[in-house]
Parts: sequence; structure tokens; C-alpha cells
Amino acid sequence: MKLPARLLLRALRSLSWLVFPTLLSAQTPADLIVTNGLVLTMNDRREVLEAGTVVVKDARIVAVGPREIASRYAAAKTIDARGGIVMPGMINTHTHAAMTVFRSLGDDVPDRLRRYIFPLEKNLVDRELVYWGTLHGAMEMIEGGTTTFANMYYFDEEAFRAVKQIGSRAILGATIVNFPAPDAPEPYGGLANGKKFIAAHRGDPLITPALAPHAPYTLDAAHLREIARDAAALDVPVLMHVAEMTEEMELLRKEHNQTPIEFLDAVGLLNRRLIAAHCIFVTDSDIALLKQSDAGVAHNMVANIKSAKGVSPALKMAAQGVRVGLGTDGPMSGNTLDVLGQLGYVAKLHKLTARNRTLAPSVDIVELATRGGARALHREADLGSLEPGKLADVIVFDADATNLIPNYDPYATLVYAASPKDVRTTIIHGRVVMEDRKLTTIDATEVKARVRALQKKISAAVAAGVK
Amino acid sequence: MKLPARLLLRALRSLSWLVFPTLLSAQTPADLIVTNGLVLTMNDRREVLEAGTVVVKDARIVAVGPREIASRYAAAKTIDARGGIVMPGMINTHTHAAMTVFRSLGDDVPDRLRRYIFPLEKNLVDRELVYWGTLHGAMEMIEGGTTTFANMYYFDEEAFRAVKQIGSRAILGATIVNFPAPDAPEPYGGLANGKKFIAAHRGDPLITPALAPHAPYTLDAAHLREIARDAAALDVPVLMHVAEMTEEMELLRKEHNQTPIEFLDAVGLLNRRLIAAHCIFVTDSDIALLKQSDAGVAHNMVANIKSAKGVSPALKMAAQGVRVGLGTDGPMSGNTLDVLGQLGYVAKLHKLTARNRTLAPSVDIVELATRGGARALHREADLGSLEPGKLADVIVFDADATNLIPNYDPYATLVYAASPKDVRTTIIHGRVVMEDRKLTTIDATEVKARVRALQKKISAAVAAGVK
Repeated sequence: MKLPARLLLRALRSLSWLVFPTLLSAQTPADLIVTNGLVLTMNDRREVLEAGTVVVKDARIVAVGPREIASRYAAAKTIDARGGIVMPGMINTHTHAAMTVFRSLGDDVPDRLRRYIFPLEKNLVDRELVYWGTLHGAMEMIEGGTTTFANMYYFDEEAFRAVKQIGSRAILGATIVNFPAPDAPEPYGGLANGKKFIAAHRGDPLITPALAPHAPYTLDAAHLREIARDAAALDVPVLMHVAEMTEEMELLRKEHNQTPIEFLDAVGLLNRRLIAAHCIFVTDSDIALLKQSDAGVAHNMVANIKSAKGVSPALKMAAQGVRVGLGTDGPMSGNTLDVLGQLGYVAKLHKLTARNRTLAPSVDIVELATRGGARALHREADLGSLEPGKLADVIVFDADATNLIPNYDPYATLVYAASPKDVRTTIIHGRVVMEDRKLTTIDATEVKARVRALQKKISAAVAAGVK
Repeated sequence: MKLPARLLLRALRSLSWLVFPTLLSAQTPADLIVTNGLVLTMNDRREVLEAGTVVVKDARIVAVGPREIASRYAAAKTIDARGGIVMPGMINTHTHAAMTVFRSLGDDVPDRLRRYIFPLEKNLVDRELVYWGTLHGAMEMIEGGTTTFANMYYFDEEAFRAVKQIGSRAILGATIVNFPAPDAPEPYGGLANGKKFIAAHRGDPLITPALAPHAPYTLDAAHLREIARDAAALDVPVLMHVAEMTEEMELLRKEHNQTPIEFLDAVGLLNRRLIAAHCIFVTDSDIALLKQSDAGVAHNMVANIKSAKGVSPALKMAAQGVRVGLGTDGPMSGNTLDVLGQLGYVAKLHKLTARNRTLAPSVDIVELATRGGARALHREADLGSLEPGKLADVIVFDADATNLIPNYDPYATLVYAASPKDVRTTIIHGRVVMEDRKLTTIDATEVKARVRALQKKISAAVAAGVK
């Protein structure tokens, strides 16, 4: 090295002591840093960072990069995810969270919907049940790494209150049916409820109010047309059970000579606002219609096979560009609100159905639970991957669970070996709602006690003949 | 009350102070009491005790009854299972525990057995790997409530050492194949290893040594006949993969014009010593042969559908009296060693296959994992239910997990909602091997560190072309 260069270097070194405080003060302010984890970004390139950092400010991700970038930010809180998997929060595209209070009631019985679910709901569902049931369900989802859910139920103001309190992200849809509902004595009363609910809460940063016509076989065509017009005018999502039941298929064939998808197209509901749950019985031409309409599909594998209905061609739909996400359905159908638990079922059932073990690679399945869910809800600009600009819904898995060791392929580990209890920390909208398995926004003990009290009340009613 | 009666009562009351110490000393000595839990006895009457007590002495259950019986016993240790589910430890009738070190390697690839498993084993399986891998696998099983497992692998002395240390109950079978194996340079060398292993350890109270001919398509008929004779002479179990692969079906059809079950019958292996894993491809006449021979069957639903092979008619076999239990297979096939996780898959896949949601009620599925497993291993006199006289293999579930609340039907809760991490306490042979999620017999941190070190070694070998 020549003399002038060495002198220059020395000068720079001595200068560094002056520069250092400047560097410190030059740290960009942030709210939260998650660092040292194995980061699955789920971005377009499916980038994985061995020891990565995610920086959050004002509910959004502002930076994703290697461990070293953490030092550029000054945040009030840093979570050390050393050795753990860090990924986007999972998205549950179809559920009825408050039905946790009925979990494991009426399993293994025929015609469960009309013999158990509708009578139980008619007699027992009230504001109190919806509030505590939704809180319990949202708690289970946060504990299992689900940060967003699309929900259809009754007494949506109570669901709103519960979700707001716990801090989840949700679409809450007011259920509309052609018979008296728990929150609407007149048939179709859910529509007025829904419009009132939408007016009260549109624009909420975390909760999107929506309409939820129950299914093509529980509403008439005139009301479905009206709902389609209202949803368009209000520009809100429409949640609906579609192509799920054999009786539905038979009824629509008989009355309209149509498939459910064709029928929804005819009444004006098949469009980008629709999130169609199940879609088990869809033809190739239905799939083309779904694609063309830009509707979303919620694939609920566990609930669909438990009820022996069948395996939806969801991967085929996704491959053809339909917006497909995963859903748990309600806890009287799928028993848990565990999206992670769906992953193994989705992968294995599609392999089995096609008799091809190479189908449904793990990375595609994790994508369905994250980006896929975001696409199904038309929220891909904000959700589904860890990228600067997106909303900060982030989960961190345990690094030390026996079942997650070794970890040659993090996607395979998540799909085939992880359990919902391996989620350690859940962040929604930049807020840490669970840290080291402890919920930060609610009193979990109280929620459990309330749900146990509801169980007693429900058991007494069932013993007295309500079902 | 007349005067004499009142006097008598008073006399008795004052006497009670004298009687009390006598009552205390009259307590029967015991080792361990588990009390206050919801006890699923899994006995013939499928008795459930709302708040029950299980008393253990000298590795056996000496009493099962209501909470109150606890006061009749004086035990060194009492476990309060208030609100939790208490049940027999689950039984894993087919696995390769040491393969945990390969977990999530080679998922989603075709011809995994010959392209990945055999080469990896040939190049990497040694004493160290078997010891730490088996310890890790047994740890995962204890953490998930599995107390007995049937294992086929290599270097059985190392597996024995690991299982002995952690305190599990196991059948350990020496694998025999027609090519050089990790622990036997000559083809069929596993038979000599196995005979030596059996001689060294027969009569062990927890571990039963066994022979494990790999499969009908990886040994010739002459050797299978020899193994059948040796197993009969030694009266040891024979563990084997049977009717699992399409290539197996084709080969036996071509070479012997037989099904695998017929072939095993012909070579003398189809008898009460056989525990046949998989049995996916069995005809009605095969099922009749299995029943008549009194062989056991290990049903591995998760591994079978993940590999897209098919759904074994296991419930049909069980209904016809075949001894059927559940298995996880090895962690390169099923990824976890979680028997509980099999329950939901078994129930749902059988419902789906028959398109009947009322099939496979939860209590039958829990029975497969407990009594069914005991029957498949011909250990029903000692294992599979909580009854006086049986060996004390007992597990206790958490009472407070969000996903287990509410609990209308404990069997449905176990099958459809529970996670392996909901097991709090595991007792094997009367010894508490895990209490409040903490393993008592081994240093879990060391085991995980060793398996992580093995992952590095294996990853390097795979990167260098071994697979």
C-alpha cells in the first residue's frame, strides 16, 4: 500500500469515531424487528433467508433482508427468532369461529346440518355465545399461527367486538338464509342486519364487513339477485357455501338445470367479490367460469373428507389460475380452526386421489395457506408474503420442538411434521398478539371458563332434547 | 332419633379418633396414583369415569375406580389429572424410529425407497446414528403419548440401549434383506444379527427382541422359510412390510402366482407371530387368511396416503376380527411418530372411501390406537386398557388446551381436535417418563443437539451426491 492511501485510511479510521454517533442517530425508526429466524418470504421468487430479519413500522413491513439489516433500525421491540421458522401469518378463508362452543357435538351422525346444527343454532345462539365463541375461536387461530380469517355467522356486532379485542384480521359476513335465524326472526332478515353492520364498520383497518348468503339451496334466486346488487353497490365481499352437498347439486339441477356455479353466474354473484367455500362438485366448465369471474375459492379439505363428501379439485383449480386458499370450516365440521393442520391433509389427499406421490410439493401447499389465501380474499396487495409494503402479519415457529428436528426442508417440515402448538409468536398488523405462547390482548383463562360454562348450558339443552 | 341410637352415634364419633390412625395404617401401599382425571378405561364395557383414579404398584395397575378410592392407597407419588383425559398409552405397531434423523429428506420424489432410503442407509447408518436417532424417535413418541412401539431397523443393540435408557416399551426387530445392510455386509446377514440379539435380550421386561424380514420382495422364499422356522423355534415376533407396493404385487404374481399374504402362508410366516405392516392390497380371501392365521396387522394410514399407495381396508379387517393396530411408519415416510395424529386420518379416510360420514366412530378409532395395537402385538393380556392386572402404561392429556375446549365427547376430542403436544404426562411400566411435558429419563437438549449434528453430516453427504 502506498503512503497516501495508508494515510487516507488512518484519517478515515479516526473519523469513524465521529461518524459512529451519527450512524446511531441515522438508524431508521421502526416499531418491531424479528431477527435471526429462517425466513420464508413466500415472495415471487420464494426467497428463503437462512438468518433473516423482518422490520415493521406502522403495521407494515418496511424491510426484509439478512440478519445484518437489523442494525440499521431502532425499534422499541426486537424478537429473537434464532433457529425458528418465520413466515407470513396463515389465512383461513372459511370458518364459523363462534361454533367452537359446539366442537365435537354431533360427530359421526347423518344429516348433521338439519338434525343438529340448525336446531342447536336456533335454540342456543345468542349474543353471549357469539362473543365468547368467536373470542375462543380467534384465540385458537392465533395460537396456531392464523392471522386472518373469513367468517360467516350471526350477531356480527358481537363477533366484531371479540375480533377487535383480540386483534385478529377478519372478514365478518352476516349470514342470510330463507328461514328464521338466531339474529333475524324473519326469513332473509340477515340482509338488513348485514347492511347495517357494513354501514357501521366499513373502513376498519382490520375487519372487513361482508354479506354471507348461506348457500345456493337455502336462498331463492330473487334474494340472491338482490344480494348481488347490494354487494356490488356496497363493494363488499360475499361469503357463501358453494357446490358442497349432493342435495344442493340435485336441487339446482332439478329446479334450474344448472350447476351451482352456473346458477351463481346467472344470479349475478359469480364475480371478484365472491369467496366460494368448498367447490367440491365442480366441472371443468365450472372451473373455467370461476377463473373468468375472478372469484375466490376456499378449499376445506379436513371438513370435506370428514363429512365423506369428497375431494375438491382445488389444486387443479389453482393450477388453472383460480384464486384458491385454504379453510378449516367451522368446529362442528372440521373440529379445529387449525390451518396448519390442513396442509398435510391437502398434500396427502391430492397425492392419493391422483395416485402420484410427486404431486402437491410442500412449497405449493404452504403457498396455498399464505399467498393463496390472500388471493382468494383479493388481498394479495397487502397480505400473504413477507415483503416491504405489505401488512405485518408474521408468525414465528419454535426452533426446538422434537418433531421439527431435523429440518432439511422447511416447507416439508411445516406440511408434514409441524403441529399448531409449534407456533411461538404471532404478529397481526404489527402488533404482537401472542408471544412465547402467551396471548397478550385477552385473558385466556376467562375465555376458557366462559366457554366451559356455555358447554354446560348447551349440554343441558341437548339432554332436554334440543338438537 | 331415640336415645340409645344417639348414644351409640356419640360413642362411634369418639371412637373415630382411635380408629383414624388404624385407617391410615390400613392404607394399601402403592407406587403411583393418577387421580381426578376423565378416565377412558378402554375396557370391554368402554367404561368412562368422570373423575377417576388409577393406582399403580410394581409396574402394574392394581385399581381403577372413582376418585374416592385414592384414599385407600398410600403412594409415593400422586399425579393430579384434574380435568384432563387419562387413557392407556398409545401403541405404534410399525415404525423405524432411528430414521428421525432423515425426517423431511426426499419428500415428494418418485421411487424414494431405492433412490433415497436404501442409498442413504447404506452410506450413513452406523451405531451412533441408530443410538441418537432411536432416542430422538422414542422421545417424540413419549411426548405424543405413545408408550409402546414395534420397530424394524439396524444395529439393534444401539436401539436397545436407547430404548432402555428412555424407558419405552418396544419390540425391536433386526432387519433382514437380500443385499448388504448397514449392519450386515453379507446378504441376509441380519438373520445372524437377529438371533444374537434375541439370545442376549429375551426376557427383558420392556423390550422384546424380534426378527424383521424386510418384505416379500426383498428376501427369497428359502430364506423366508428359514426365518419362519427360527422364529417358531425362538418364539419371537416377526415384523415385516406386507402388501404395500405395486412392484411387490406384480413380482409375487409373476414369480409365484400368489398374493403376498398367500406367499407368506406358503413359506410358513403367516401365523400368530407375524405383525404385517401396511396390508394395503389385500383381497377378501387374504383377509380370511389373516384372520385364520391370527396374525397382526399394522395400519399406517398417513404414510400410505402420503406415498399415494392407497387406503388399506383396515376397518373391514378389524370388523372381521383381524388383529389391527395403528402405525406411523418411519419418519421418512410419515414424517412424525405421532400415533394420535393418525386417528383423524384413519377416521376421515375410511369415511371418505366409503362415502359414509357415520362410519368409523371416534371410540372405535381410539380403540384401534390402544387395545387394537395391543391385539396386533399379541399383548392384549398386558396392554391396551386401564384395568387391574395390566401393565401401567398411562397417559394424561392437558385439561386446559384451547383446542380441547369444550369437550362433549372425549373420543371425538381425541380423534378430531387433540394435538400430540396436548399430552402432559406419560407413564410407562409404572414409571413417569414425562411429567408436565418434561422428560425425566434423558437429557432432551443433548439428544436434539446430537440429531442436529447428524443433520449436518447427512446434509453434507447428500450435497456430495449420496442419495
